[in-house]
Amino acid sequence: MMLVPAGDPVDAVIDNLLPMLEEGDLLIDGGNSHFVDTDRRAKQLRERGLAYLGVGVSGGAEGARRGPSLMPGGPRSAYDRVQGILEGAAAKVNGDPCVAYLGPGSAGHYVKMVHNGIEYGLMQLIAEVYDLMKRGLGMGTAARAEVFEEWSQGLLSGFLMEITAEILAYKEQGASEPLVERILDAAEQKGTGRWTSQSAMDLGVPIPTMDVAVAMRNLSALKGARGRMSERYEGETPCIPGERDPDLAKLRGALYACMILTYAQGMDLLGVAAGEHGYGLDLETVARIWRGGCIIRSALLEPIRSAYQRRPDLDHLLLDPGLASVVRAHLGDVRSVVAGAASTGIPAPAMMASLSYLDSFRSDRLPANLIQAQRDYFGAHTYERVDKSGTFHTEWREH
Amino acid sequence: MMLVPAGDPVDAVIDNLLPMLEEGDLLIDGGNSHFVDTDRRAKQLRERGLAYLGVGVSGGAEGARRGPSLMPGGPRSAYDRVQGILEGAAAKVNGDPCVAYLGPGSAGHYVKMVHNGIEYGLMQLIAEVYDLMKRGLGMGTAARAEVFEEWSQGLLSGFLMEITAEILAYKEQGASEPLVERILDAAEQKGTGRWTSQSAMDLGVPIPTMDVAVAMRNLSALKGARGRMSERYEGETPCIPGERDPDLAKLRGALYACMILTYAQGMDLLGVAAGEHGYGLDLETVARIWRGGCIIRSALLEPIRSAYQRRPDLDHLLLDPGLASVVRAHLGDVRSVVAGAASTGIPAPAMMASLSYLDSFRSDRLPANLIQAQRDYFGAHTYERVDKSGTFHTEWREH
Repeated sequence: MMLVPAGDPVDAVIDNLLPMLEEGDLLIDGGNSHFVDTDRRAKQLRERGLAYLGVGVSGGAEGARRGPSLMPGGPRSAYDRVQGILEGAAAKVNGDPCVAYLGPGSAGHYVKMVHNGIEYGLMQLIAEVYDLMKRGLGMGTAARAEVFEEWSQGLLSGFLMEITAEILAYKEQGASEPLVERILDAAEQKGTGRWTSQSAMDLGVPIPTMDVAVAMRNLSALKGARGRMSERYEGETPCIPGERDPDLAKLRGALYACMILTYAQGMDLLGVAAGEHGYGLDLETVARIWRGGCIIRSALLEPIRSAYQRRPDLDHLLLDPGLASVVRAHLGDVRSVVAGAASTGIPAPAMMASLSYLDSFRSDRLPANLIQAQRDYFGAHTYERVDKSGTFHTEWREH
Repeated sequence: MMLVPAGDPVDAVIDNLLPMLEEGDLLIDGGNSHFVDTDRRAKQLRERGLAYLGVGVSGGAEGARRGPSLMPGGPRSAYDRVQGILEGAAAKVNGDPCVAYLGPGSAGHYVKMVHNGIEYGLMQLIAEVYDLMKRGLGMGTAARAEVFEEWSQGLLSGFLMEITAEILAYKEQGASEPLVERILDAAEQKGTGRWTSQSAMDLGVPIPTMDVAVAMRNLSALKGARGRMSERYEGETPCIPGERDPDLAKLRGALYACMILTYAQGMDLLGVAAGEHGYGLDLETVARIWRGGCIIRSALLEPIRSAYQRRPDLDHLLLDPGLASVVRAHLGDVRSVVAGAASTGIPAPAMMASLSYLDSFRSDRLPANLIQAQRDYFGAHTYERVDKSGTFHTEWREH
């Protein structure tokens, strides 16, 4: 089982191992390989009579010690050979191991990639709330640590909330302020979030919260340009702490709803990829093995799992009556936080993208008819109609 | 010169032509080929002693009749052979042809791709304004046609604004309502917008307005799911026409500022691609040849061109003092429209993404420090600090 960085190192290790492998041997890639690479390698090894499993592993340092969530994909027969080992190693939730056979080929690495895409979205949302608490409500780091500590006990509980509380409370010996405030605000990335967005675009699945999380990591890295931009646009908008800002209960409700919207986008992508890539994923199983061990584990995965348990053919997670009622209950909070952020000039890109996603999705009529008309006007790309079937083109200017 | 659909057809035509071509011949691809394909084909043909130019052509039906904007890339010597023909065919702005040598390899097709990415962003912005006028202000199509007609005469003038006015005014013979209202609201696409977002993510350049325009085309196409979603989330938010909605002047200012923010994202991407892909693009030239003939031609391209004329090394378009003052003057309108859209439940994803972009970019301090801390906590990915140089890792839980 290889646990090496994605990309060339995996191919290098495979090349080194090949002379030592015999027909029937099983090689496992436990890294964050791109699913296209996994399919290529599986084919290459299959031709030599070797079995290959691409296994997503999430859990970081904690997962290594207490058991990770494992997302295996490849030939079912190969999985059966290591099922016992993987189940033994995996995190447990009520005795239930956080591992299951997901599907053929690169199914496991695809699911892990989307896991990471969701992770990008949740991290950006939490970062925005942390920022809104500071710039909007004028809260110090210690006060924010307390709030995150409290929130991480309840409905919002989950790994990322827990570590946020710990991080905000962490002080170096003798330091006057928490360490987090001394960390450079330029986010880095390894690529899995970007791959998720790129794949979603290839498959035509909208995941705007994840897209903007990727864009915002890239934007944060432009530290020099941001400094010049802050001078050029300084003082042009009111950033008055405490004025008209959403209160903490609204922030909490907004974060909760936006987290659901983020998971929903990821599950939607997995549903489409399951068909398009032939993975045949069972989304209930995916939600089940994400409940423990992994970075996006959270209390929310239980109702998400239940939604797919009740309706395995659920078209979209947001159509589940239970989750829909939760989102509806907190939608006013999202609206209030987004409106406040827009007015005060505090960026809330992932919250805005999440709200846009829902408001667009629940629009029976969107203005895409105008886009279709424009495309037909300038490129004769044709359009469909609501009042009759067929494909139409209009000479708009001849009129 | 080939003008065939991107993808396999181009390779098929090349294969058909190859037996008839002699060393020194010049082949031109005037389609919307992916820049990676163009680089591959140029190499393949160069090995046979043939010259290859990838030429972006924008203008649609109007461009075909009155002259398009042409975006050629490839060997300079090949361009020199056809310069006269291309200049003769191109649209003219004050006698200045909308064509210029852009750079080696796939420079031309890359510029055309980003042109189309900007086009996606502008079209989504216009569609949102058209929707906000209807759902927010309760305006009928005829009233909206008049407003777009008026707006397309002034500062916002440009091809997309002009055709929007024409489209909204267009009625079929004997029809009671404008044709646009009978068009299915499910947007289609050919891929160039998606490629722009995907390439931007590869290069680490944030272009959130274009990303969300792609996502919203995909979302609009989910017509069935949207219908079910509208039932599930109906009535949960107030969509009261006329109440608290932004007035037309604010909408106009918001659209204007967001258009500048969209062009700025595209130019930023081109600047990075110029370096990363070795195109050596001159951004003033790009703005100059986009002033006429193409889909994104607009009055705004003159001040954009001037900005790069004044400062060829301009780090970011939004740092230009002239454009910055225009954006600042209308930022209040953007805030007001976004806050109103968020409150009333009318989707404004591209406006929100544009505002997020600016508010994040002008933030000297972003919450990405928390993201870096989280990454270090769960993955030991390390971080940099603001108070000392180096790379650091913390055992956050040991504390």
